[in-house]
Amino acid sequence: MKRTALAGLLAASLLIVAPASADEGMWTFDNIPAAQMRQSIGFAPDQAWLDRVRLGSAKFGGGCSAAIVSREGLVQTNQHCARSCLQNLSRPGQDVVRDGFSAATRAEERQCPGLAVEVLTASADITPRILAATQGQTGQAFVTARNAATAAIEAECKAGAADRRCQVVALYRGGQYALYTYKRYDDVRLVFAPDNAAAFFGGDPDNFNFPRYAFDVAFTRVYENGRPAATPNRLKWRSTPLVENEPVFIPGNPGGTSRLMTTAQLEFQRDRALPYRLEQLSEMRGRLTQFGSLSPENRRMAASALFGTENSYKGIGGRRLTLSDPSVFALKAQQENEFRARLAGDRDTLAAYDEIAAAMTTYRTFWKAHDLVELSPGQNRLVGWARTLVRGAAEREKASGERLPEFADARLPATSRNLLSDQPAEAPLMQLQIEFWLTKLREHLTVDDPMVKQILGRESPEALAARLVAGTKLADPAERKRLWDGGAAAIAASNDPLIVFVRNFDAQARAIRARYENEVDGPISRGQERIAKARFRVYGNAIYPDATGTLRLSYGRVAGWTYAGQTIAPFTRTPGLFARATGVDPFLPDARWTTAQSRLSPNTIFNVSTTHDIIGGNSGSPLVDRNGDVVGAVFDGNIHSLGGEYVYDGATNRAVSVTSTIIEEALAKVYGRADLVAELKR
Amino acid sequence: MKRTALAGLLAASLLIVAPASADEGMWTFDNIPAAQMRQSIGFAPDQAWLDRVRLGSAKFGGGCSAAIVSREGLVQTNQHCARSCLQNLSRPGQDVVRDGFSAATRAEERQCPGLAVEVLTASADITPRILAATQGQTGQAFVTARNAATAAIEAECKAGAADRRCQVVALYRGGQYALYTYKRYDDVRLVFAPDNAAAFFGGDPDNFNFPRYAFDVAFTRVYENGRPAATPNRLKWRSTPLVENEPVFIPGNPGGTSRLMTTAQLEFQRDRALPYRLEQLSEMRGRLTQFGSLSPENRRMAASALFGTENSYKGIGGRRLTLSDPSVFALKAQQENEFRARLAGDRDTLAAYDEIAAAMTTYRTFWKAHDLVELSPGQNRLVGWARTLVRGAAEREKASGERLPEFADARLPATSRNLLSDQPAEAPLMQLQIEFWLTKLREHLTVDDPMVKQILGRESPEALAARLVAGTKLADPAERKRLWDGGAAAIAASNDPLIVFVRNFDAQARAIRARYENEVDGPISRGQERIAKARFRVYGNAIYPDATGTLRLSYGRVAGWTYAGQTIAPFTRTPGLFARATGVDPFLPDARWTTAQSRLSPNTIFNVSTTHDIIGGNSGSPLVDRNGDVVGAVFDGNIHSLGGEYVYDGATNRAVSVTSTIIEEALAKVYGRADLVAELKR
Repeated sequence: MKRTALAGLLAASLLIVAPASADEGMWTFDNIPAAQMRQSIGFAPDQAWLDRVRLGSAKFGGGCSAAIVSREGLVQTNQHCARSCLQNLSRPGQDVVRDGFSAATRAEERQCPGLAVEVLTASADITPRILAATQGQTGQAFVTARNAATAAIEAECKAGAADRRCQVVALYRGGQYALYTYKRYDDVRLVFAPDNAAAFFGGDPDNFNFPRYAFDVAFTRVYENGRPAATPNRLKWRSTPLVENEPVFIPGNPGGTSRLMTTAQLEFQRDRALPYRLEQLSEMRGRLTQFGSLSPENRRMAASALFGTENSYKGIGGRRLTLSDPSVFALKAQQENEFRARLAGDRDTLAAYDEIAAAMTTYRTFWKAHDLVELSPGQNRLVGWARTLVRGAAEREKASGERLPEFADARLPATSRNLLSDQPAEAPLMQLQIEFWLTKLREHLTVDDPMVKQILGRESPEALAARLVAGTKLADPAERKRLWDGGAAAIAASNDPLIVFVRNFDAQARAIRARYENEVDGPISRGQERIAKARFRVYGNAIYPDATGTLRLSYGRVAGWTYAGQTIAPFTRTPGLFARATGVDPFLPDARWTTAQSRLSPNTIFNVSTTHDIIGGNSGSPLVDRNGDVVGAVFDGNIHSLGGEYVYDGATNRAVSVTSTIIEEALAKVYGRADLVAELKR
Repeated sequence: MKRTALAGLLAASLLIVAPASADEGMWTFDNIPAAQMRQSIGFAPDQAWLDRVRLGSAKFGGGCSAAIVSREGLVQTNQHCARSCLQNLSRPGQDVVRDGFSAATRAEERQCPGLAVEVLTASADITPRILAATQGQTGQAFVTARNAATAAIEAECKAGAADRRCQVVALYRGGQYALYTYKRYDDVRLVFAPDNAAAFFGGDPDNFNFPRYAFDVAFTRVYENGRPAATPNRLKWRSTPLVENEPVFIPGNPGGTSRLMTTAQLEFQRDRALPYRLEQLSEMRGRLTQFGSLSPENRRMAASALFGTENSYKGIGGRRLTLSDPSVFALKAQQENEFRARLAGDRDTLAAYDEIAAAMTTYRTFWKAHDLVELSPGQNRLVGWARTLVRGAAEREKASGERLPEFADARLPATSRNLLSDQPAEAPLMQLQIEFWLTKLREHLTVDDPMVKQILGRESPEALAARLVAGTKLADPAERKRLWDGGAAAIAASNDPLIVFVRNFDAQARAIRARYENEVDGPISRGQERIAKARFRVYGNAIYPDATGTLRLSYGRVAGWTYAGQTIAPFTRTPGLFARATGVDPFLPDARWTTAQSRLSPNTIFNVSTTHDIIGGNSGSPLVDRNGDVVGAVFDGNIHSLGGEYVYDGATNRAVSVTSTIIEEALAKVYGRADLVAELKR
């Protein structure tokens, strides 16, 4: 899909790597490219604007973004960001994802188990302190020293404040370290989510496509001390429609990009990691689809897992397609070569490239074991809890700075809250997931691998998964609390089959993690740190860091695009929804919409495409105008944006949002929530 | 996996492309590399040997090989080759794949629906005639002319003989055309197949691995006029054990290789076709696994489909891994460049490379439509039958030479026999497969594609698949016969939903096929034909053609291999089977084996690895010694052999066979079939 734009990209690349092209970049709030913004969209925000928008933006859960949109704690995000909350609130016979949710009164607003919303209140450059702490260290010693310094800095910052989270963030792949301080809301309640038929109209077929008609919005409310939080720093609501070409901004938390990876890292992604992930996602998709087709109950149970699987599959598929385009890869190689040519004489930085390549070569010999023994177990809720309990008990015996980072004092509250919240773990789905993981473990590492023998014993993946799920009591939050509070003694005494199971191979899993830190993460971090320093020397601050799941600002315009001779307009309008409705899922609007159809204005802009450089994690971000007012909620990118992991192509890369105009109209006319509209406008 | 051997391959490549390295090649029986054989294994067969072995070898069904092993029509192949027969003979509550089959008397031998066994009786070079017929033609005109000439030649050859099949084969990717004449046995009956636990011991985890303990053998018998066929040209049975390093041969029908593809073709495979196939196979694997886990009945229904899916997934996965190794690809590119350098001045042949590259570029714009609209429908049994009926009715109105090749007079008997045989099409599995195909169609071509709209109408893939399967009568062979015999009038009058469905988009599907022939197949065939001619000029007959599913001879030795410092011995012995048995599927031997354990010799060689260059389609081939006597049945390759699609690496590439010694012993001591052993030795 990227071919037509490559000539342009190649031309641009003669300037190179760093200096971003128009509308490119996920910028930190303390380093926005003002001149470039003015040139491209005719406007650049001042410091007051930046502060206001930052304090009205939020991180939503682990992987989404949001905006504070009323003075009484109302938080706007996507329905698909609230999906895990909807899933967690579902019960047998009660499918909250499918049916949506609407709390007529505040008393009916329901707490989302385990969900937190965070606002970035301050940031500080702590690069010198981290560099001093890690000076001269390599391999695992480097990782250990960095973790210890991080734990200390975060603990100092948190200083016992219950509603504060402190996070050391490595920007520019280690070229800069920042300390971020968040105001954290731990009590987040669901206010409104539409039916899935409206939120995800078009389903997987339309996902990452445009024109689009998704009402992908949801509202939650943050509470403090049992009452709606006072949030004076809310973003204001704009009711007037967007205009083509007007400048707009997206503050949000893009999860991760790989633009500063070296070609050795990218080759590994292209040839190994991405195909592996895609095949696993495909197979899981097949399993979940078949599982869900058995009954409405199964469909309900598997809904979020299937959505997540299909969404990842499509997203990663686009990344693979981009990286496997020889001309895209040639462009990345050319950029790297040109930058290296500028480094002539800087042997240390040039050596960093070789060290990273050597680390990737090493990683190729054990990456599947790392994935399947250390990383995958946490992806199932039950096994993840068991591991948190087993490791947490052991780690809490140590000093904070010596623990695995997720158990350091400053991070323990989030870790334990996630463990102890009342999230369902429904047995049939858990069993399917655990069986799948164990099957892949055996398949990829082979039955003759000692670790596989240790993990499976003489059981089959099917029998073992069934036994673990049938016997464990960890689905009960009270039992998890008992074991968590009981610490190492309780874990040692436990006969819970899942605890016994995880305990049995935890030493091996930790050993792989240590090996990864020593032979892969350490050398790569050290190498990237040196490359980043060289980049600063050459380009100054005209570069943005790879996305890290932290707050960034993207800028751009309301615009469609032209591809393969076809021009796509930036706006869709309500009548298009009904024209696209075939009457069968996923093109089947809920009765509330068809009933309201005649009352809906044919001119309302429904979804909009903009030129922003965003990526997964930006979902739920507000789309704001030059005044910093909310004009929509970002929920997707077009198909061309999927290569954004590696390259931004301003000609075709588009972000997609649901507009404030349709949110306002549908809340009032489809869902009978004029009260919410009134709150937004207050 | 190929890395360590690359230095050797690169050195060998300095000689280049054509002249094969030791033990490399799937040679036609009229062009064996006698000198090279003598040098490598110390023996080369004479013409009498070749004739005898050829007439004792057979093509088994569409995709396997076999040997005639008694004078009374007994045919040895793999259990996994007889699997579709076992599946076809299964019925609700009767799982012949799982339980195996043993006909105590000839009267109990059961006919395999639709299965044929063929012996190659003659071959002739018809290159001049095809070249004359296609002279000066390009694009679709070339394909049409070639098809017409093929139809005429095959019809002349067949001349009404019911037990003869004639096939024009394009060797060297069109550099040579041969007319193959087969003695065809249409009445093939199942004699013996072991339980699946023995045949596929180790299951998917052990597939393509070695050491191995699979009793992957089955026996069928060819009948003529209702009686066992007289087969004096059988291969003799050898009871004495194999010896390490002894020379052995594999006559068989390798299905296809891509060694003569240009880099433009290989890039398409690497970047597009293989990942696409792997993801589809993965998802289907997930669906079938989940479907099969519901009940023993579902498991029975899905068994063959799941086996085929997993087998393809693993095989194609190995191909992808090989092609995505930059050094393997560099080797192929280097070979191509060196050959092109030798062509200096031969502008026409050099242009052929560019024409092939251009055709691949074109194909990238519509290959998914070609796959999903034209190729995929035939992969489901029901839809395939419907298409054969719809197209067959239309095609038979035309002169033989003007029809689609599969409906030309000489091929009609095989086509109609496959259509009309009594193969089950069980509704739940059919529905799963059709729904999956329609879902992928919509996903890859998008809901906005006119063809997708035409095929789906306003139905969902789920609803449409359910309606088609519930409503069609095509699962009944009598109904298929009625429609086939009724021709165009019967098809036009049919209200069968599947006939209506296929009729509705057949024009579009044919148009894509025509486009493929005109813009891709034609130019590539023309280009490869010219490259092949140049290869003959440079290398003479020291080259072998890519595999084409026709009879070839591979040569080699009994040998293990060394990889990554580990040496694998060529033999496994019976005690290893029991040591590997964990007691859970797929490492759970049937009670017949555990009961017999104490009576089985600990010295019997069970499976054996040899250096042969083989590929899928060779399954079931006899392993024969220098006397042409049967010493085993080939059933697999080791993991390193999966790259054999593109390159043969004599250091690690191994074929894997079940030995005659364990076949003989287990038939007698485990399965109580001393009578079969006696027949083998007669």
